[in-house]
Amino acid sequence: MKLDPVLRLILELARLPGIGERSAARLAYYLIKDSRASHESDSPSLAADLAAALMCMDSEVRLCRDCQNVSVDELCSVCTDTRRDNSLLCVVEGIADLRSIEKSNVFAGRFHVLHGALSPLDGIGPEELKLGLLLERVKRSSVSEVIIATNANVDGDATALYVARLLKPTGVRVTRLASGMPMGGELEYLDGATVSRALQHRREL
Amino acid sequence: MKLDPVLRLILELARLPGIGERSAARLAYYLIKDSRASHESDSPSLAADLAAALMCMDSEVRLCRDCQNVSVDELCSVCTDTRRDNSLLCVVEGIADLRSIEKSNVFAGRFHVLHGALSPLDGIGPEELKLGLLLERVKRSSVSEVIIATNANVDGDATALYVARLLKPTGVRVTRLASGMPMGGELEYLDGATVSRALQHRREL
Repeated sequence: MKLDPVLRLILELARLPGIGERSAARLAYYLIKDSRASHESDSPSLAADLAAALMCMDSEVRLCRDCQNVSVDELCSVCTDTRRDNSLLCVVEGIADLRSIEKSNVFAGRFHVLHGALSPLDGIGPEELKLGLLLERVKRSSVSEVIIATNANVDGDATALYVARLLKPTGVRVTRLASGMPMGGELEYLDGATVSRALQHRREL
Repeated sequence: MKLDPVLRLILELARLPGIGERSAARLAYYLIKDSRASHESDSPSLAADLAAALMCMDSEVRLCRDCQNVSVDELCSVCTDTRRDNSLLCVVEGIADLRSIEKSNVFAGRFHVLHGALSPLDGIGPEELKLGLLLERVKRSSVSEVIIATNANVDGDATALYVARLLKPTGVRVTRLASGMPMGGELEYLDGATVSRALQHRREL
């Protein structure tokens, strides 16, 4: 039996992370309303635009051969940029983290995207991450320092430790992003874990 | 210049209501990850499924000729159901409201969907709603009671009053959904407006 197109759209939207069935229905009704209005005014509907963007991504976007960043070509824009410093390699959990560091405009080295963090509870072990690729890359290239920029949570900590141990035999210098008070942070409102980390890692002035 | 497929997807997703640029990016990265994993296992990606559902909706779903409910055919499933009571007509703001009433399983009449509520601040006046169609329908059919089921807020109240006045010359009975304490509601936690409405509309026991 063919599924009702409205129900089908709701079910597909509900597969997106963080979108429950109620939100999916709300989005679907919005899209239908927009679709009817667009057809009346002969302009492309949001549904059509979104579908085209999804298909374009699905067919054109792949992962960069070297760093696993998203890319349209075999190598991504970071890897093909010849002005970057080949001796610095920053390891991040995901694409969003890479973009966040790029936005800060202070890092001019290369990246390596793990596409996840170790999380035994979710069944994510070392095999699920792009760790073999990372080790290989550190071995064959001129990297002198690997900066581990995983999140400052349990999974990110575990991943950082694992990567550090994995890379130890190569002799490369391994560092991790500082953790402590965020800029503009006020002690009064900081959680205990952050305060404790900031105290532990206090610097000489 | 051709837009980067990742950026393009983020921008299209951010056009959805309630989804900001940051959520759109998170959704896009999720879709990309799923897309890569699906290609590896030769299964259809969520992006492909969602695009197909969007296009199916965009081309197949239209508004029912009579009640403006969503439909694949000229008349929707409610309007073609011969077991329904033609003398009762329930006026709702949107499709979600219609489905909510259908789910309660206590209404067996017909519907009319306005696709909005009067809202002068958002520039939605009587012309933007399907009011002409409603008046026409009440005039030519055997409706004996119009139940106004707009939301219990300012816009819903204004719309209900407007519709009641519009239908007055036809002589049809016009009613509105009761407002008061929701089932399971506790006085202690109710807002003042609801308490005031419940007092005002108190019933004889």
